[in-house]
Amino acid sequence: MEKVVLAFSGGLDTSVCVKLLQEKYNMEVITACVDVGQPEIEIIRPAQVANKLGVKKHYTIDAKDEFAEEFIFRAIKANAMYEGYPLSTSLARPLIAMKIVELAEKVKADAIAHGCTGKGNDQFRFESTIRSGSLCSIIAPVRDLSLTRTEEIAYANENNIPLPYDKEYSIDENLWGRSIEGDVLEDPMVETPEKAFEWTVSTENAPEKAQFLDITFENGVPVAIDSIKMGAVEMVTECNSIAGSHGIGRIDIIENRIIGLKSRENYETPGAVLLLTAHKALEQLVLSREELRFAETITQTYSDIVYKGIWHEPLREDLDCAIDNMQKRVTGLVRLKLHKGSIKILGRESIFSLYSEEAVTFEDKETDQREMAGMVKNYALQAACYQRVCKKD
Amino acid sequence: MEKVVLAFSGGLDTSVCVKLLQEKYNMEVITACVDVGQPEIEIIRPAQVANKLGVKKHYTIDAKDEFAEEFIFRAIKANAMYEGYPLSTSLARPLIAMKIVELAEKVKADAIAHGCTGKGNDQFRFESTIRSGSLCSIIAPVRDLSLTRTEEIAYANENNIPLPYDKEYSIDENLWGRSIEGDVLEDPMVETPEKAFEWTVSTENAPEKAQFLDITFENGVPVAIDSIKMGAVEMVTECNSIAGSHGIGRIDIIENRIIGLKSRENYETPGAVLLLTAHKALEQLVLSREELRFAETITQTYSDIVYKGIWHEPLREDLDCAIDNMQKRVTGLVRLKLHKGSIKILGRESIFSLYSEEAVTFEDKETDQREMAGMVKNYALQAACYQRVCKKD
Amino acid sequence: MEKVVLAFSGGLDTSVCVKLLQEKYNMEVITACVDVGQPEIEIIRPAQVANKLGVKKHYTIDAKDEFAEEFIFRAIKANAMYEGYPLSTSLARPLIAMKIVELAEKVKADAIAHGCTGKGNDQFRFESTIRSGSLCSIIAPVRDLSLTRTEEIAYANENNIPLPYDKEYSIDENLWGRSIEGDVLEDPMVETPEKAFEWTVSTENAPEKAQFLDITFENGVPVAIDSIKMGAVEMVTECNSIAGSHGIGRIDIIENRIIGLKSRENYETPGAVLLLTAHKALEQLVLSREELRFAETITQTYSDIVYKGIWHEPLREDLDCAIDNMQKRVTGLVRLKLHKGSIKILGRESIFSLYSEEAVTFEDKETDQREMAGMVKNYALQAACYQRVCKKD
Amino acid sequence: MEKVVLAFSGGLDTSVCVKLLQEKYNMEVITACVDVGQPEIEIIRPAQVANKLGVKKHYTIDAKDEFAEEFIFRAIKANAMYEGYPLSTSLARPLIAMKIVELAEKVKADAIAHGCTGKGNDQFRFESTIRSGSLCSIIAPVRDLSLTRTEEIAYANENNIPLPYDKEYSIDENLWGRSIEGDVLEDPMVETPEKAFEWTVSTENAPEKAQFLDITFENGVPVAIDSIKMGAVEMVTECNSIAGSHGIGRIDIIENRIIGLKSRENYETPGAVLLLTAHKALEQLVLSREELRFAETITQTYSDIVYKGIWHEPLREDLDCAIDNMQKRVTGLVRLKLHKGSIKILGRESIFSLYSEEAVTFEDKETDQREMAGMVKNYALQAACYQRVCKKD
Repeated sequence: MEKVVLAFSGGLDTSVCVKLLQEKYNMEVITACVDVGQPEIEIIRPAQVANKLGVKKHYTIDAKDEFAEEFIFRAIKANAMYEGYPLSTSLARPLIAMKIVELAEKVKADAIAHGCTGKGNDQFRFESTIRSGSLCSIIAPVRDLSLTRTEEIAYANENNIPLPYDKEYSIDENLWGRSIEGDVLEDPMVETPEKAFEWTVSTENAPEKAQFLDITFENGVPVAIDSIKMGAVEMVTECNSIAGSHGIGRIDIIENRIIGLKSRENYETPGAVLLLTAHKALEQLVLSREELRFAETITQTYSDIVYKGIWHEPLREDLDCAIDNMQKRVTGLVRLKLHKGSIKILGRESIFSLYSEEAVTFEDKETDQREMAGMVKNYALQAACYQRVCKKD
Repeated sequence: MEKVVLAFSGGLDTSVCVKLLQEKYNMEVITACVDVGQPEIEIIRPAQVANKLGVKKHYTIDAKDEFAEEFIFRAIKANAMYEGYPLSTSLARPLIAMKIVELAEKVKADAIAHGCTGKGNDQFRFESTIRSGSLCSIIAPVRDLSLTRTEEIAYANENNIPLPYDKEYSIDENLWGRSIEGDVLEDPMVETPEKAFEWTVSTENAPEKAQFLDITFENGVPVAIDSIKMGAVEMVTECNSIAGSHGIGRIDIIENRIIGLKSRENYETPGAVLLLTAHKALEQLVLSREELRFAETITQTYSDIVYKGIWHEPLREDLDCAIDNMQKRVTGLVRLKLHKGSIKILGRESIFSLYSEEAVTFEDKETDQREMAGMVKNYALQAACYQRVCKKD
Repeated sequence: MEKVVLAFSGGLDTSVCVKLLQEKYNMEVITACVDVGQPEIEIIRPAQVANKLGVKKHYTIDAKDEFAEEFIFRAIKANAMYEGYPLSTSLARPLIAMKIVELAEKVKADAIAHGCTGKGNDQFRFESTIRSGSLCSIIAPVRDLSLTRTEEIAYANENNIPLPYDKEYSIDENLWGRSIEGDVLEDPMVETPEKAFEWTVSTENAPEKAQFLDITFENGVPVAIDSIKMGAVEMVTECNSIAGSHGIGRIDIIENRIIGLKSRENYETPGAVLLLTAHKALEQLVLSREELRFAETITQTYSDIVYKGIWHEPLREDLDCAIDNMQKRVTGLVRLKLHKGSIKILGRESIFSLYSEEAVTFEDKETDQREMAGMVKNYALQAACYQRVCKKD
Repeated sequence: MEKVVLAFSGGLDTSVCVKLLQEKYNMEVITACVDVGQPEIEIIRPAQVANKLGVKKHYTIDAKDEFAEEFIFRAIKANAMYEGYPLSTSLARPLIAMKIVELAEKVKADAIAHGCTGKGNDQFRFESTIRSGSLCSIIAPVRDLSLTRTEEIAYANENNIPLPYDKEYSIDENLWGRSIEGDVLEDPMVETPEKAFEWTVSTENAPEKAQFLDITFENGVPVAIDSIKMGAVEMVTECNSIAGSHGIGRIDIIENRIIGLKSRENYETPGAVLLLTAHKALEQLVLSREELRFAETITQTYSDIVYKGIWHEPLREDLDCAIDNMQKRVTGLVRLKLHKGSIKILGRESIFSLYSEEAVTFEDKETDQREMAGMVKNYALQAACYQRVCKKD
């Protein structure tokens, strides 16, 4: 009997996949849940469900540190932001797929399976990562059988598959953010109901008192809050908690999916919004104007790569080389004020600051203003010439 | 006696210029104050001061409508934003210069004068615009004499020049925003004192109750608030008032000046932040992904042009042609919530929406998910190939 | 019986399609050949073959003028060039598809068919254009039946389908270029055999004597050669003939197809290489540096759009608006020398030239070199600051 | 007496500077000539002239290897090209300035001097590099005294300064190219006279027989011709000789100078044209489409940096990091044919090729064409939607 490793969340799609792989594909199913910071229940429940579905072997793979250090921190350094949203789901997909590939290799699986339907972004992200690292065949049972949600539920009931608690929205959570879609949100004129949110409070419910904090960066990544050093996972967790409690990080956008459909998406990314805001504030102090401009171009391209889930694209590595060099100087401190959904930059400092009266005026203590006259006179010469030559008629 | 037209604000620099032009340059001085939406006192006072300084003829030129319709509305359509700040001072400078050039022509002046020192951005913006439209010689008395602020004050006192009320900060105001710089703000670690702000309240002082409003856009520009139609000047004024009252629009950045110095700048641009946020939200609904990506590139270039003050650069006109075409579809309504310094998008709609289940799924009522398999398989082929071919060793 | 309009070239693929649509799809087939400047035999032969295959109605649609004026001339103004090749096939596909859509509407067809296989770029270009303009269903018989070339030939022989003269290479020709692929060319280390070329001579066989010519442009498009005015089709035809006779316009590249496969492609585009070279030479004289830089960005995006065949993408129209404005000044004359495969620019002139001693030095007849000292001193301030501040350790 | 190090070429400008520095500035002059591959006579002559002018100490600094390995090879990897010309003069200026700074430090000079006038690009390139590495004051005697050419010649004659052989054009030469400007060339309609060229023959005088050669690249830089390994200096020298003998590498452009003047420039860069053509041909084989697109953006920015002479800009280093990573795979062979001014790519191969039937089709030996139907149907969805939704009226 052929062996298949299934990326398993314990939700409807992947639970149905277990049964389908066993019954219709006649395969030995190994399930694996990759921990990238989702809530604890979503780590525990898959193991329980797998057991109940008669899966012989279920793996829980802790990838939180790797996710924070190798993916989230790279995203911070790149200011990765897709159409206004700090990429969370799409950032984790390649890592999950890589972990599944590693496991498939270890257990000598013949195939890798996933529960994606044929309608979303994740099938692209999963499969392209898997194909780039493995020769295993790939099975997508729900898509292969073109099952609708109703058909899946019917099949689950017939086959005694435990269904998760009812959710109104389609949710995805990891350390870097929480996405909310579906149901009433599909109408772009419907306001997102308050109950959709779990990581953030409303501005109304946020504390009356503002919170002040200092975030320290080294080489472009956050290393301390109010001088207390912490590791990557702890840092992101803490920032989610702090910023979320002040109602920061709710995002409501019309997003362009990989194949070009526009969809309405809600996100809660409090830690990401806080850290990216602080990071950019520090960059303004230490990067040259040329770097800041080019970094915008890098951000745009990098974010598209992450959204598409093609972490294995060579350009991503090339860009990381430029980014890493640039970020060597993004070291310093940013002081912020959080209040009722808003973040204010209060101050910033760095040993690599390019803002410095002394540095800027190193050669002449007393500027002679007259020396600017020539520069001003020779400024934008072609634009003036254009007006003279081309507009004279 | 040669005749000179001086762009006149009634402040220290330009008041000193009047006297210098009369005494040291031996010229007949005509002063002009261009109204681009600064506070009323700054329109009235120049006339009084000019009179007191013995200026024969002072002009007040009302350019508010032109500024709103031809400059601010273009900036909205372009999402113009320089390093995080909606350009206000730099947007008005070319218009002021053009009005001065027109006046100089009308009164047959021999020269045009301005009060800029040799240290800032405005000398570039003023002079390049003037040179592109006039053959008059340009005089910059403060810069020509390399006067320090202290020397100017001494000269003013000696010559009985009325000085304006004492200001701690260097301020510039027009319809699109208010800029604050200098004094303690020159240290990037010093928090901007509350008293520096005039257009916005702090989040603490903002109303407890949120405000909801609908902004209607036509062809990329705002035309109504809560279905009440209004003209450009009224629209911007109203948005400044509403958003400012909720503590929206305070910006604190490290900015790269034209010649490359970094400076710390504070801005109050409540209306701009509100209108740009709403405008971008609507664009997400109606522009194609390709347009949204390219529009980011246009925004970057357009904003640099505006900041540099080279409104007369031919590329600006080329970009406006692309923008105008794109903005024909940015027509519709955006619903927003303002509360305690934060803006939330609640909804958006447009007859040109590219988000529409019907539109997106026009050809097949029931998608066969299987048809995606081929697309997924052929996705990101080169990235996979790269991993196989180039990482095998 | 349902009616189908088939885009028909008389080649193997589309001839097989006629029979398949008649026999397997049981449809009434109407064929149409769109003339975009392919050799006369390829216009005549389809009519003959259609007749022989029992097609009731065959249309020949002359789109040469529209192709030259609306597509090629836009490509010239945009300097459209995909990975080193002036787009020919991909430029014509949308026009052909539009003409087929018009015909389908006129004859009230139920479906539109094309002969593309499932391996190339053209299926994307055809179908996306058709879908953007028509609700007809689309049939791709060869792809639907996944026929190999061998199977097609067998089917043709069985069904008495006349086969075209044997070709070693897969060729596509229109007014703007000729593409050559397949056979031995699939090995990137094999030199393209001389017999593959029809529009150009080798440099060895080119005339010993160089040819000099003047090309006149108006609003960015060529209007005269050596002062002899000519229309768009004649202009391109003439340039193909002149440049081809001097061995100009052979291009051999590794190209990235739409889905990401690299393929080796040979092109003959003598007229395109000549006209684009001249066009760019004139642009250097009349466009500002800012425009030239931004035009490169436009060219890259525009060329990708054309290559993908998405002429109906709204961004294409937006870009054309910017381009049209910019090209108003690309009016003037370029003098060139053609010899043995090489083109040299000898001279250029324009009434809109931004190169002009008089224009450039309008304000000061005798520059005081000292006035540059201040500008030089203030040049690249941040880069110097970076070296001081950040490299000191 | 203060000590000054003068960058010395032995030409009119710098010879006049020696005397001026001795007489008018009353300084002890040390001269230095940095060898970046200019003709031997231009290395020998400065020493002779310096001696004749009574200079106590003249240095000849051999920087050829560093120029080739650290500057030219970086330019090749970046495909550096400014408005159609491979940057030669501007590439060498920062290196020359750095060598002068090193020498000034070594001899404990008080100042550094250069012979640039106030009209060109080189004053910017020299001074910004010097300022970024040294606190010495900078003296530009010709500019400081605003001397015209005629005044310089008069001063030379009066002071017994040996003048170099008369040149019609202003020439600059180094290993990477030769620039020619001035005199009749200032009229863009005047054909460049044949006598202006020294490194290249005309196509008429090029050999009747084509030459074939293989260039091998490793990590993006050329290492062998026809399998004969050679160092950087030898490689560039050899390529200049080979390509120049076939009439390759003449460039005639309208160029935008740093301050925005358009100037007409002629260049001879045979080796650069040959090596860049070969380099790009290899890149097409090994880089992904995403890399090729982004590399164009890098090239544009990198070339502007080089042209401006701001080698010390931090962004240049950031970009080099991305480039170096990307170029690791630009290893392989390119076969070329040179004939009568034209270069043809005949073949290319690499172990990192992303073109490979096997690689591209690794997972399915027999593609089912039907699997493309879904991809085609879902292609360019928004563009079609735009046509439906927005063009219906």
